[in-house]
Amino acid sequence: MNQINRVAIVGGSHGNELIGVYLVKKFQQDSNLINRSSFETLALLGNPKAIAEGRRYIDKDLNRCFHNQGLPNPTLSSYEDLRAQEIQQILQPPNQPIVDAIIDLHTTTANMGLTLILGDMHPFLLRLAAYLSSINPLVKVCSHQQARGSGYLRSICEFGLVIEVGAVAQGILNAELFQQTEQLVYAVLDYFEDYNQGKTLQTNNTLTLYEALSVVDYPRNEEGEIQAMIHPQLQFRDYEPLNLGDPIFVTFEGQEIFYEGASTVYPVFINEAAYYEKGIAMHLTQKQLINNL
Amino acid sequence: MNQINRVAIVGGSHGNELIGVYLVKKFQQDSNLINRSSFETLALLGNPKAIAEGRRYIDKDLNRCFHNQGLPNPTLSSYEDLRAQEIQQILQPPNQPIVDAIIDLHTTTANMGLTLILGDMHPFLLRLAAYLSSINPLVKVCSHQQARGSGYLRSICEFGLVIEVGAVAQGILNAELFQQTEQLVYAVLDYFEDYNQGKTLQTNNTLTLYEALSVVDYPRNEEGEIQAMIHPQLQFRDYEPLNLGDPIFVTFEGQEIFYEGASTVYPVFINEAAYYEKGIAMHLTQKQLINNL
Repeated sequence: MNQINRVAIVGGSHGNELIGVYLVKKFQQDSNLINRSSFETLALLGNPKAIAEGRRYIDKDLNRCFHNQGLPNPTLSSYEDLRAQEIQQILQPPNQPIVDAIIDLHTTTANMGLTLILGDMHPFLLRLAAYLSSINPLVKVCSHQQARGSGYLRSICEFGLVIEVGAVAQGILNAELFQQTEQLVYAVLDYFEDYNQGKTLQTNNTLTLYEALSVVDYPRNEEGEIQAMIHPQLQFRDYEPLNLGDPIFVTFEGQEIFYEGASTVYPVFINEAAYYEKGIAMHLTQKQLINNL
Repeated sequence: MNQINRVAIVGGSHGNELIGVYLVKKFQQDSNLINRSSFETLALLGNPKAIAEGRRYIDKDLNRCFHNQGLPNPTLSSYEDLRAQEIQQILQPPNQPIVDAIIDLHTTTANMGLTLILGDMHPFLLRLAAYLSSINPLVKVCSHQQARGSGYLRSICEFGLVIEVGAVAQGILNAELFQQTEQLVYAVLDYFEDYNQGKTLQTNNTLTLYEALSVVDYPRNEEGEIQAMIHPQLQFRDYEPLNLGDPIFVTFEGQEIFYEGASTVYPVFINEAAYYEKGIAMHLTQKQLINNL
């Protein structure tokens, strides 16, 4: 594997996820915080117009717009499609060195603590994740594999990484999670620096990985209206085991709905605000131990 | 005091506060839940367009638009100004019986539990609040007095009451708070029914009331950009005493900022998402005991 030469830190791809917005502003004001000797680091606000309006997006979710193969597509006209092209031009300029790694900063209303979401299962990303979870037991690691050009920002480069922190409401700053996210960003940059300099970092050889399996939608009526809420016994219980017969929803009339799957799963993104419109009440994952990294 | 003849329950004045939206939909589908023998109850969605878009408002905050005196004002053009006029026509139709009491359902990202906000200090509202807090110790009572026509929905009728529940993120349902809010609405309606029927309800003669004194904004730079976050030691500590020297903010660089007031206050609406743009980091209240109700 080659050296890492260019790294991008992106915040505010969703304009109402403020921790990433204010971290990137901090990094832009004091680039010493993110500069390392062996590579270049760029800090970028993803969706400035949505940030100004305090909304997730203007026309559509920017983090589903990174489809194109680097060439401008003149048929696109939504704000986010055009902004995705701009970002791609910044991170992957033609005939110039491109970004090797992206750290994409997000928050969630689900109780996901400090979660790393890996864009693919490259051994370098797995070792990085094992290292970060070994130095900070609050770190959880999910894989949600996406093909190149699948629409996610993290999918446009070789090493794409999302830091997803919560529970935090949209539109607010949580100081504790802000500071924890900041330290996690520095730990990733330090790992890249050490890698470039040939240092071998002490780490567990084992990684606990939550692999995305499927999604569950809310119960809905024929008009698509939600008929039930996340059950109080499941609310804020991301990463805890869910077994056959455990309650997952409660209707507005108080009727409980139970999990009917045969195998134990580990839900994440439970009650994420932005996923109501996507038809996602939670993601189900399976817990894996990966050895001999 | 006369009988209560008409009551309105309003949800979704802010389109991203879902507990009120779905409670009103439930009440509209089964009006037996809110009908009482001695008065008429109307359930109304405040801001349908904002609800459809999952936003607090379209053009401006609807709950600051109830200024007019019942007559249509042809110079107004924003969606919320026009909707406020429509609501006023529904609740206070010319030459017909008007609504005596409004129960306005809201949620907050602050940790305010089940809060009643009283629009004025009418003894009937104070006795109602004392009764509700005596039957449910989770109920807290704030007064935030507003003149008639001050812009708040609750200010347009004789007995205006807000139920403000949290902490809950914008755009999500929290089942536990949904069910607690529902029970609180029924308790209010039952109290009105008993009052109309001349029953004397057992209650404490004492009410703990948090009276709004002032607001505190975030530290900002000359461009108005926020420079600090709610301190972790204050986050989620609504209704707890704040004393001289207690930390209230922490800057993005980690510097702590302390409360400098001489008297003990009780902050509420700490880190409410919708108040960033209003220049409000928290409301400060003073705690009062009101006796001999």
